[in-house]
Amino acid sequence: MLEVADALAEVLARARPRPAGPEPLGPGLVGRVLAAAAAADRDSPPFDKSLRDGYAVRAADRFDGELRVVEEIPAGVVPRREIAPGECARIFTGAPIPAGADAVVMQEDATAAGDRVRVNLPPRPGQWLYRRGAEMRAGDVVVPAGSVITPAVLGVLAGVGRAEPEVIPPPRVAVVATGDELVGVRRTPGPGQIRNTNGPMLTALATSAGAAGHDHGIARDTREGLRATISAALDGADVVLVAGGVSAGAFDLVPAVLEELGVTAHFHKVRMKPGKPLLFGTRGDTLVFGLPGNPVSGLVCFELFVRPALRALAGHPDPGPRVVQLPLAEPVAESNDRPAYRPAALEPAEVGWQVRPLDGGTAPDLRGMAPADVLLVLPAGDARYDAGTPVPVILLGKPD
Amino acid sequence: MLEVADALAEVLARARPRPAGPEPLGPGLVGRVLAAAAAADRDSPPFDKSLRDGYAVRAADRFDGELRVVEEIPAGVVPRREIAPGECARIFTGAPIPAGADAVVMQEDATAAGDRVRVNLPPRPGQWLYRRGAEMRAGDVVVPAGSVITPAVLGVLAGVGRAEPEVIPPPRVAVVATGDELVGVRRTPGPGQIRNTNGPMLTALATSAGAAGHDHGIARDTREGLRATISAALDGADVVLVAGGVSAGAFDLVPAVLEELGVTAHFHKVRMKPGKPLLFGTRGDTLVFGLPGNPVSGLVCFELFVRPALRALAGHPDPGPRVVQLPLAEPVAESNDRPAYRPAALEPAEVGWQVRPLDGGTAPDLRGMAPADVLLVLPAGDARYDAGTPVPVILLGKPD
Repeated sequence: MLEVADALAEVLARARPRPAGPEPLGPGLVGRVLAAAAAADRDSPPFDKSLRDGYAVRAADRFDGELRVVEEIPAGVVPRREIAPGECARIFTGAPIPAGADAVVMQEDATAAGDRVRVNLPPRPGQWLYRRGAEMRAGDVVVPAGSVITPAVLGVLAGVGRAEPEVIPPPRVAVVATGDELVGVRRTPGPGQIRNTNGPMLTALATSAGAAGHDHGIARDTREGLRATISAALDGADVVLVAGGVSAGAFDLVPAVLEELGVTAHFHKVRMKPGKPLLFGTRGDTLVFGLPGNPVSGLVCFELFVRPALRALAGHPDPGPRVVQLPLAEPVAESNDRPAYRPAALEPAEVGWQVRPLDGGTAPDLRGMAPADVLLVLPAGDARYDAGTPVPVILLGKPD
Repeated sequence: MLEVADALAEVLARARPRPAGPEPLGPGLVGRVLAAAAAADRDSPPFDKSLRDGYAVRAADRFDGELRVVEEIPAGVVPRREIAPGECARIFTGAPIPAGADAVVMQEDATAAGDRVRVNLPPRPGQWLYRRGAEMRAGDVVVPAGSVITPAVLGVLAGVGRAEPEVIPPPRVAVVATGDELVGVRRTPGPGQIRNTNGPMLTALATSAGAAGHDHGIARDTREGLRATISAALDGADVVLVAGGVSAGAFDLVPAVLEELGVTAHFHKVRMKPGKPLLFGTRGDTLVFGLPGNPVSGLVCFELFVRPALRALAGHPDPGPRVVQLPLAEPVAESNDRPAYRPAALEPAEVGWQVRPLDGGTAPDLRGMAPADVLLVLPAGDARYDAGTPVPVILLGKPD
């Protein structure tokens, strides 16, 4: 059976970033990836700028008498006068330094009377100036291609006039839940029936990963039912998630229907617990994941394989999953023929965080996943880990 | 001057959660807070359910001969027959266990021939059964009020039929940038002008905190200009962010205009660096923040005060800011009369993470904030911290 790392490599080899296009600068771009480097169109600051309210002066002046105030320069105003010895300009934060001046005296360090000012604390040259080009020079790359857009990056892009930056669009994800026992959330289940949890959960997981998720509802467990719904899901999607019907059972028709629809399977079954029945295929550039019907197994497969694929499609430089070593808050015993992935919660420790396992590791209970921040990664075999032992954990992409 | 902790307490005392209302279950609810507890409307599983494809049997049966297969039970089908000694039912994962049976034999552990089956590995009672109510009993609270909705929680809510859960709406945030030197992102700045970075950045920060951000553009630095734009921003907003114009300068008119518009100031200036000029006021239930015009200072104020306020308005149980102790990746020297907040990046360490400072701590450069994951919190005074020393850090709400 395929190992997790090899399966992930198979997936990522087929998850190429979608073609970029221009989009209006706005909060919707946060988390997206910039496709083309953004350079400064001019120096920033574009002029020597005052960092304080006060007086623009010549640092080499003598400050034993009063200076004459020859001009007042608020922010946004261009100085008209050159400052001569014995002169100064009233200036405000953000305003351009006039010619001749090379320092700013804070108003707290001066005494004004009419158009005369006495400087009580003579300045160093360059004091309270922010020099032209100190932040960036015209032509400097200020945001490299491949950067993830944060609110600060958005501010930088606005500053250099990128009103419609080239960005990679969010992947389009179509979700199909399969199973004759399923009914929608608004229905009261009849005997033998349960409500569809995978559809809403997987659509929300896709959206939380920055994708555009669309829930195609429930497909009946017949060749015709699966064919119709999965075929519609494949149209125009970058990724299709099919939940259920991928085990080896007589009613698990998904692999055969995918083949009929022209999907090439690259693997089916991965050495992991839960999530073993995972199927991965492609049709053209569209990635297809056949996820186990158990929602906890589906969630684990999503975090290990689907989220990294979505990040790769969105052009993220590091698709993940993000793994870090964190100490256990309590002992863990594990006995498994496959590597196991168990939900755990982050807790602040004296320094950094520790992780507390959330269940006995056996019940297929989605409620137990709700408080999870991470998945513990426990190798195959019999082992007991003491409290304080660092173990690898995968960070879940959950909201703050 | 007010300390940061006291200023935050002033803000949070006035940030009451917005009234809840029903909204359709969907990915847009991720990150939102559930206002009313959700209980199970029936047992889950609603029946004893098979965890494997195989045969439903009586564990007390004798397995020395063949069993007769009396029925086939796929998922979603209600069993019609009771299993008598010497009988069994063909069963599939998720299907209800028929009366009389109390264990499932996996198909791998049995040999079938027509309607006869030989069990090669006799089962324990209860084997491969998921008992009725094992996950939840009718009436059990499955998601408590005040829970943050994650994709897993969304799945649980779908499972218990909450098609329109009661949730707290996202706060509405109006953003105003002030300054005669500012032009919009599509304009080429003239002499003495710069582009508006605060508007796009603060709107994106608000959105990244789960709020509905609306950018009201640039207000001119006159009483009339500020009055018109801020008055429009106050209408229907839960939070108004005004960037710039809050220092003590002669052109800093924002405090006076806010007072004219009926905003009661609760504090103006906080003992911190950067961000000292921060102003906080309220009009009715609307919170108003006057943020420093320097974008780095504005971002620090946002993370220390505005994000916690937005989380409190959205009903989050822990408004933050989230603080944790993490070791320094390199030495840091600090000399300040106020507590300082400096950008730093998280790096995986042998165990957990360490933090690497991102700048010399002086330049007001938004570009230097772009890779920041955290803010180092350094107390006032002169100090040098060796590499490896744990320091408190505030986690920024940046995208994955």
